[in-house]
Amino acid sequence: MDLSSLEQWENERSEGNDLILKNAGLQMKRLMNIDTAAYREGALSVKTKELLGLTASLVLRCDDCITYHIRRSHEEGVTSEELEEAILVGYVVGGSIVVPHMRRAFARWEQLQAE
Amino acid sequence: MDLSSLEQWENERSEGNDLILKNAGLQMKRLMNIDTAAYREGALSVKTKELLGLTASLVLRCDDCITYHIRRSHEEGVTSEELEEAILVGYVVGGSIVVPHMRRAFARWEQLQAE
Amino acid sequence: MDLSSLEQWENERSEGNDLILKNAGLQMKRLMNIDTAAYREGALSVKTKELLGLTASLVLRCDDCITYHIRRSHEEGVTSEELEEAILVGYVVGGSIVVPHMRRAFARWEQLQAE
Amino acid sequence: MDLSSLEQWENERSEGNDLILKNAGLQMKRLMNIDTAAYREGALSVKTKELLGLTASLVLRCDDCITYHIRRSHEEGVTSEELEEAILVGYVVGGSIVVPHMRRAFARWEQLQAE
Amino acid sequence: MDLSSLEQWENERSEGNDLILKNAGLQMKRLMNIDTAAYREGALSVKTKELLGLTASLVLRCDDCITYHIRRSHEEGVTSEELEEAILVGYVVGGSIVVPHMRRAFARWEQLQAE
Amino acid sequence: MDLSSLEQWENERSEGNDLILKNAGLQMKRLMNIDTAAYREGALSVKTKELLGLTASLVLRCDDCITYHIRRSHEEGVTSEELEEAILVGYVVGGSIVVPHMRRAFARWEQLQAE
Repeated sequence: MDLSSLEQWENERSEGNDLILKNAGLQMKRLMNIDTAAYREGALSVKTKELLGLTASLVLRCDDCITYHIRRSHEEGVTSEELEEAILVGYVVGGSIVVPHMRRAFARWEQLQAE
Repeated sequence: MDLSSLEQWENERSEGNDLILKNAGLQMKRLMNIDTAAYREGALSVKTKELLGLTASLVLRCDDCITYHIRRSHEEGVTSEELEEAILVGYVVGGSIVVPHMRRAFARWEQLQAE
Repeated sequence: MDLSSLEQWENERSEGNDLILKNAGLQMKRLMNIDTAAYREGALSVKTKELLGLTASLVLRCDDCITYHIRRSHEEGVTSEELEEAILVGYVVGGSIVVPHMRRAFARWEQLQAE
Repeated sequence: MDLSSLEQWENERSEGNDLILKNAGLQMKRLMNIDTAAYREGALSVKTKELLGLTASLVLRCDDCITYHIRRSHEEGVTSEELEEAILVGYVVGGSIVVPHMRRAFARWEQLQAE
Repeated sequence: MDLSSLEQWENERSEGNDLILKNAGLQMKRLMNIDTAAYREGALSVKTKELLGLTASLVLRCDDCITYHIRRSHEEGVTSEELEEAILVGYVVGGSIVVPHMRRAFARWEQLQAE
Repeated sequence: MDLSSLEQWENERSEGNDLILKNAGLQMKRLMNIDTAAYREGALSVKTKELLGLTASLVLRCDDCITYHIRRSHEEGVTSEELEEAILVGYVVGGSIVVPHMRRAFARWEQLQAE
């Protein structure tokens, strides 16, 4: 799998967000804040919300979003079994078009476990 | 909101599934079984899996799928606060194109609570 | 299944196309002609092209498009077994989000066979 | 075309938004406010922004969103020629899967002009 | 066109599938088997099914899936004329958003013919 | 941001279009001509049409299409404020799944301004 390192990915993501904020007006900044707030602890745990974000990103097939939520899930203590079950729901709902993203998702998971 | 009753919705869904099974070959039947199995208790609870299915259905904007997972979430004891937070993740990830489906999602939720 | 009759569906489709043509400029009219031409006999048979259109419509989840290609497939002599296999490819590629459209697809197929 | 009247559509939309607000937490309410703010006069005119919203809604194939932006475009003085050109961009970008939504879009346009 | 060689692409795909199988539970493995089975000879020929998979992958805009079905179509003896007609259906249905994937699809086709 | 230079991007796009035209039949060539014609001056200005194409490409999440319309918008004298507002509409409509594409969109914009 030809993946960037997690550190490179992190740097590029951070650089890209700075670029958005530099160009963003007030509403765009507010929208980015809400994006962060939606994953905070509430009636649902952070862990559950990250898995929701992961499954939504899988069925919409966004590799950057998948990597982000997999890394956050790892930080929240999600186990390999839990990850597989959340990915299975995404695979069932989204179909085989999701498979190339699953390959990269599990490759990221292995990167995180090797750290 | 011009919604069918939950009973009508249930009957039409059941009738439609019978129609699929009547026409389905072996692989299609197997695929429908896996669809059911993906939401069974495992490392993740049934409740969490139903919320994963709900958020995935929201961002893919499938009213029938949303109604199904909202009804199942209700059966699993999901609270209004938990439902709102799962829907918020779907709204944040999927954008305002999701709003018409949120209207119908909350209308279904009220139908379920009124039962 | 709460489906319109095939005749009602046909009339509404025809009325809608007249409405487009009444409002369309030159490029929009040309685009609609290409849409028709793409399904004409060529290196691939009309039947194969209709099945391509059907599977594409299934994974993009467009009921009107599905009904159109199912009716055309029926006219081209597609059998129930062939239809099921084309729908299976759409189900595998597109996932369970396609299922509500499969219910209506098979209901349309039964309408056509009952004619 | 089997469309609700504009008044019915308006009432159902308004009722649905009330239902969202009744169930919404703080972030969901903020997100709905940003949705409104994004279409306000700025460097781009309201009219241009409504056409952006219309074309985005067309390629994402959301009838409710299309009806909303067509009605707003009408209020902002968009002409039939301008509307046709914005819809053409949506048709070219989004393909024939957009056509059923174009039928309903032009039917709504005729409703608005008949008022 | 900055494409990997077909051999590199093949290796990466194979490595990715191994990664999925290593992490997969029973249902995920079953789902991958059905994915393979859906393209087997039946009432429709393997060739027709590969073209169905290609067109579905085009309109869903998945480069890996497109490359896979183009390579399989080549193995099944699909001609350049047949390929162009299947891609045209995808272009007509999916719109100009499909064009960047068509560029890569034809580049893969030339790679296969140059072998 | 790991972006190709604009010149490299331009060359690859041009090479890819040549590849399509070399393989295209008559209808495919006609469709590519309509794609060009849809953005010509009419009741709406070229600038407005390019912004429509940009927002549609954003919500459909096609980086190549976004780069193309950003470069064309730049040629048509779109200002940074106008660009930000068109991108905001895409972000609001399409949700956070659009964010990775916004990062690359603003990076392309900076490339264009640095020329």
